[in-house]
Amino acid sequence: MTNFKLTELNEQAVQYIAVGAAVLGTGGGGDPHIGKLMAQEAIRKYGPVRVISPEDLEDDALVVPLSMIGAPTVMNEKIPSTEQMTKPLDLIEKELGRKVNAIMPIEVGGGNSLVPVIAAAERGIPLLDADAMGRAFPESQMVTFYLDGIDCSPITMADERGNGVLMHAIDGVWEERMARAITIQMGGSASICDYPVTGAQVKQSAVHHTLTLAYEIGKILYESKDMRQNPIEALLKHLHGYALFHGKAVDIRRRTEGGFTRGEAVFEGTDAQKGRTMRLFFQNEFLLATEDGQSLAVTPDLISLLDQDTGMPITTENLKYGARVTAVGFPCDPKWRTAKGLETVGPQYFGYDVPYVPIEKLTAQKGDAR
Amino acid sequence: MTNFKLTELNEQAVQYIAVGAAVLGTGGGGDPHIGKLMAQEAIRKYGPVRVISPEDLEDDALVVPLSMIGAPTVMNEKIPSTEQMTKPLDLIEKELGRKVNAIMPIEVGGGNSLVPVIAAAERGIPLLDADAMGRAFPESQMVTFYLDGIDCSPITMADERGNGVLMHAIDGVWEERMARAITIQMGGSASICDYPVTGAQVKQSAVHHTLTLAYEIGKILYESKDMRQNPIEALLKHLHGYALFHGKAVDIRRRTEGGFTRGEAVFEGTDAQKGRTMRLFFQNEFLLATEDGQSLAVTPDLISLLDQDTGMPITTENLKYGARVTAVGFPCDPKWRTAKGLETVGPQYFGYDVPYVPIEKLTAQKGDAR
Repeated sequence: MTNFKLTELNEQAVQYIAVGAAVLGTGGGGDPHIGKLMAQEAIRKYGPVRVISPEDLEDDALVVPLSMIGAPTVMNEKIPSTEQMTKPLDLIEKELGRKVNAIMPIEVGGGNSLVPVIAAAERGIPLLDADAMGRAFPESQMVTFYLDGIDCSPITMADERGNGVLMHAIDGVWEERMARAITIQMGGSASICDYPVTGAQVKQSAVHHTLTLAYEIGKILYESKDMRQNPIEALLKHLHGYALFHGKAVDIRRRTEGGFTRGEAVFEGTDAQKGRTMRLFFQNEFLLATEDGQSLAVTPDLISLLDQDTGMPITTENLKYGARVTAVGFPCDPKWRTAKGLETVGPQYFGYDVPYVPIEKLTAQKGDAR
Repeated sequence: MTNFKLTELNEQAVQYIAVGAAVLGTGGGGDPHIGKLMAQEAIRKYGPVRVISPEDLEDDALVVPLSMIGAPTVMNEKIPSTEQMTKPLDLIEKELGRKVNAIMPIEVGGGNSLVPVIAAAERGIPLLDADAMGRAFPESQMVTFYLDGIDCSPITMADERGNGVLMHAIDGVWEERMARAITIQMGGSASICDYPVTGAQVKQSAVHHTLTLAYEIGKILYESKDMRQNPIEALLKHLHGYALFHGKAVDIRRRTEGGFTRGEAVFEGTDAQKGRTMRLFFQNEFLLATEDGQSLAVTPDLISLLDQDTGMPITTENLKYGARVTAVGFPCDPKWRTAKGLETVGPQYFGYDVPYVPIEKLTAQKGDAR
């Protein structure tokens, strides 16, 4: 499947992407279920969505990321309308005085990979096979565009009532402050376009073909069941990932504060890990996994929770007491391992007092210790 | 002076207005001192500001209120630049696609009566002799335009760093929520244009000639000193106001929270009021004066604190322990005494558990009781 590239999204593809994006979304990026139903409905109504690759873009094309911002806890209860999702596009087109050539996801995540699908279907605009994280992260400035110094403005936002906002922020950190404050006032979630970029900027700074990657992951998880393979093993092989821990959720603390879902979960080991304990810390996304105070995987590397039986991803929102899971980890995009990358999304930024060590190294060290 | 109308503002007029607006600003509306210095500087640089009356406006003229929003505590420390003050005008002109014909104050208040003077001088745009409160109030929807159902949008905001915001809010209450949240993120104060109105709307809904009134009050306070009159008596006579209490500030509790300066102050009686105690409650503005649990004056009627010797107004920010003051009260504009008016700015809205009784009646009742 290595050279495969998505060119069109139908209902089946949306189903795969919903699941694959939830794996890459590391527990965040919005609920995949609601996004999937809305995207499938949009495709039934408006037809399949054309997908283009970064290399297909003209250098001066206008590409606009579209997403939902806020606490996933709220988004599960306050379902956005198609009108709310497309309104930031109208506002940004008006401000820039030109039409959007392609819509892209800002992040890979169950919900936020599908929000652009809904808008692309409704508007008949192509969807770009790329995003600005290669995973999901909780804050607006946590995008590869920010690392490369690309202007985040104009930023446009809308709620489900009819309120609309246009902002010119001096940088991504100011965007995050102001957009988060507006999101909280809008009831905890809002639709947003930020970092309008050119085709040339996409080619240089975006993480490419992540929609295709999400599709492949979803396909593996669905098809391995039919092929009587272990879905998690098939997935780890395809992504060059690592199984971190097999366990059962015995304690989950989750609070919605400051427009985020924050908390931690504790897992008792099962199978080979019996008698051991893993702690998983999250802010919308899973950010740190530890065992006895030792890191198993650290942000910006990806940490996902999969159902032990089906391999299906579990979001920070939907994790339930007693769930039997396998925690898995994958290396992040190399852009996040730079000094600016780690300053922006490393463990210190989130208040975790651990150093960043690449997952490949942590896993090798663990092997040595045995 | 009844038929006098301001037609031009020079440095002297600004001095009068700063003081008179602080009296009508009921302790809020921003610090008069900094606004005065900036307005006088602007007039020295750009020349006198032309003042027009509501009746001079074409019905389809575009009139834009310009003000500072936030906690006065912060504005005293974070002085805005002229550039920050004029930026919301640029943003609203761009959004509406036409030039502003006149700038008006949104409220009467030491600072917020002068912010439009600074912008009018710098832009060479006429200043309108009217406002949308006839006093100062702490929240954005507390304007006569809101009572008359006029659209508050588009709303434009700026900070001193270069961040700019344009909002379309579905009503004044949603504007307040979103603009206040942005203000807090912008560091506690911001410049704002809201309720862009037509000449016809000004004629119907604004409170007219309040700049002239502020000028007259300032002139009385300055001139009575030279004429060896009691300035407070002269003022009360001109405004048909009431002396509520003579006292000394013995306790002041002030906190900056949620973008407001909130608190209460206690005064021990002096002179004829010896042995008695007045409590004064405020949220940016003085909103309720009580003695032994009985109301002396209640929002939306105006309550101001004047220095016993000079008659000069004291803001909620500048009230100091030991200050000897006379609390005075004036009837508010009749628009505030309607059902919608009292729902919007009456004592219940601010959380004070007292009924609204017009100051004329409260004062007459007190007279009866003696």
